[in-house]
Amino acid sequence: MVIERTRYDAAQLRAFASRALVAAGVSAADADSAANVLVDSDLRGIESHGVARLEGYYIERIREGNVDPAARETIVRETPTSLVLDAHNGLGHPVSVRAMHRTVEKAGNAGCAITTVRNSNHFGIAGHYALLALDRDCIGIASTNSYPIATSTAGRDIILGTNPIAFAAPALDGDAFVLDMATSAVALGKLEIAKRLGQALVPGLAIDSDGHPTTDPDAGIAGALLPLGGVGTANGGHKGYGLALMVDILCAVLGGGVLAADMPPRAQRSKGAITSHWFMAIKIDAFRDVTAFKTDLSRQLRHFRQSPPAPGFDEVLVAGDPERRRVEAHERDGIGLDPVVVASLERVAATLHIDPPRKRSA
Amino acid sequence: MVIERTRYDAAQLRAFASRALVAAGVSAADADSAANVLVDSDLRGIESHGVARLEGYYIERIREGNVDPAARETIVRETPTSLVLDAHNGLGHPVSVRAMHRTVEKAGNAGCAITTVRNSNHFGIAGHYALLALDRDCIGIASTNSYPIATSTAGRDIILGTNPIAFAAPALDGDAFVLDMATSAVALGKLEIAKRLGQALVPGLAIDSDGHPTTDPDAGIAGALLPLGGVGTANGGHKGYGLALMVDILCAVLGGGVLAADMPPRAQRSKGAITSHWFMAIKIDAFRDVTAFKTDLSRQLRHFRQSPPAPGFDEVLVAGDPERRRVEAHERDGIGLDPVVVASLERVAATLHIDPPRKRSA
Repeated sequence: MVIERTRYDAAQLRAFASRALVAAGVSAADADSAANVLVDSDLRGIESHGVARLEGYYIERIREGNVDPAARETIVRETPTSLVLDAHNGLGHPVSVRAMHRTVEKAGNAGCAITTVRNSNHFGIAGHYALLALDRDCIGIASTNSYPIATSTAGRDIILGTNPIAFAAPALDGDAFVLDMATSAVALGKLEIAKRLGQALVPGLAIDSDGHPTTDPDAGIAGALLPLGGVGTANGGHKGYGLALMVDILCAVLGGGVLAADMPPRAQRSKGAITSHWFMAIKIDAFRDVTAFKTDLSRQLRHFRQSPPAPGFDEVLVAGDPERRRVEAHERDGIGLDPVVVASLERVAATLHIDPPRKRSA
Repeated sequence: MVIERTRYDAAQLRAFASRALVAAGVSAADADSAANVLVDSDLRGIESHGVARLEGYYIERIREGNVDPAARETIVRETPTSLVLDAHNGLGHPVSVRAMHRTVEKAGNAGCAITTVRNSNHFGIAGHYALLALDRDCIGIASTNSYPIATSTAGRDIILGTNPIAFAAPALDGDAFVLDMATSAVALGKLEIAKRLGQALVPGLAIDSDGHPTTDPDAGIAGALLPLGGVGTANGGHKGYGLALMVDILCAVLGGGVLAADMPPRAQRSKGAITSHWFMAIKIDAFRDVTAFKTDLSRQLRHFRQSPPAPGFDEVLVAGDPERRRVEAHERDGIGLDPVVVASLERVAATLHIDPPRKRSA
């Protein structure tokens, strides 16, 4: 099945997403910030978190009164190494960009720092925030809880979000190790793609609504995602489940936000202010000369990249390599959006009476 | 296959491990510290990291000159939130206990703190150190790299350790969330048990020495462990691989220790001073009232424990529950050691001319 994609320059998508958010009542600065995160996701090839979500996750939620476009976060508690923010149901991206910048600034002074954000909304890709630490010679970590869509490893209830963890560390010459992973085995998008292609899932990704493991994408979509490692303990499913709950503890329990235990049921996913984030920065210089760190990390990454692939694989990569390649390709060739996403953006433009994004000339 | 186990009280095993280490040249305080971590592992039911390793990992390595029993760590770099220690090839446990205590003390003053330890040796179970944070109302995190025994998700080389991550957070009345997980799909011990029982492995745990996925425990033992998530990306193997490399970056690259890239080959596993550790503490009070945190965490844990199990499962637990039950059983009934371990302890006693551990009276 070949999907005809329409190509856009990143700058055009960014401008469009920003003017849509402004038209929905978001300030120009916040709209630019959110648009930048969304299009960064498309650039990195994580389509599920890019402009494809502009309509359903952001514009509609604002228009339905579930997200406050004019909210501004307040400081709940602060020390030289810690910061607790309340986002008051604003968009997740702008507060998260500011939170990570503050975290990096504090780490620059204090060695390490952590910020939690509560009563926020979906912030896009966690990796975007972790990466903000690198040009200040820090290690960056970012995480968020999210509405429940996954089960525990021995359970049948939808009880946990995909609760991603992102970790970024700088190497020489702009190279970096950038891990950005959901703690569920896969994201829901993988099941939706399998459904569209009429393919069965590999075992270990989902259960049906009765709690039985399933390889049927429809049954999995109606059921729940499994944690990384799958069902039970045989392949380490208790580890993915543990990581997901760890994320919920760092984000929501530490930050005083909405716990997984209090998340609204699936039918009310659009309810606002249920998301909590967690950001951390570690100043490399507090431990080691920055150049020594970067030199060792580059050597380490080279060691892995040059290691021999197993039969059936072309190469060994390190976390962040696939995304870096896609960014290069998308900056060169434009970002290709599938017809469903193009139609969604055109609906956004029509609803808000703004120009749709300008397509790339062929 | 029923194995006849010999039962010992924890106190007797602790006393024995300590006098063995003293006889091998370790100071009384360090020997007690190491013995305490080893027996804590047996109490928690993680036999692979308990007194079973006393002979091969500690006593023999000291006697062969691969570990320095009299080493004392030095401070390489220090700030109010950071500490870099060089263990100078001493035992891993005592330096790690001291490192975590210092980390918790720093976090108590500064809000959060991180310590790295380089040129160290195997430190036992990571969870032991994370737990040291709890009675000071901190969240504790501990991690270590280790000699390579696992592959990358697309690779065939033995290139990564099992690189565990432990995370502990306190709830009400001594309850806690305690995640302690290898970032490989399983530990080597699981393959050894399957081999002993003549059972095939489930898919996704190991590759053979040619790099092909295998369910034969012998082939897996000769080959390499797979990361959490298995081979390739279908079940998220790139995530387990990413977490393992993240651990190596935090421990070895940040701490200036021996990188995975420079680890000795498998035949030289007993080589000392190749291990680096990472410890972190987060003071809860820097973010939130401690009682509010514990109350929410207890409510959260209850929510998961009371959630309905999937077909085929009796109950849903949270990380740390299985270990807590085993500690209770082992404190009540003693710790049962299998004949291989009993024989190993008797060899240690004979070699060092000390009394073997006193068995529990029937």
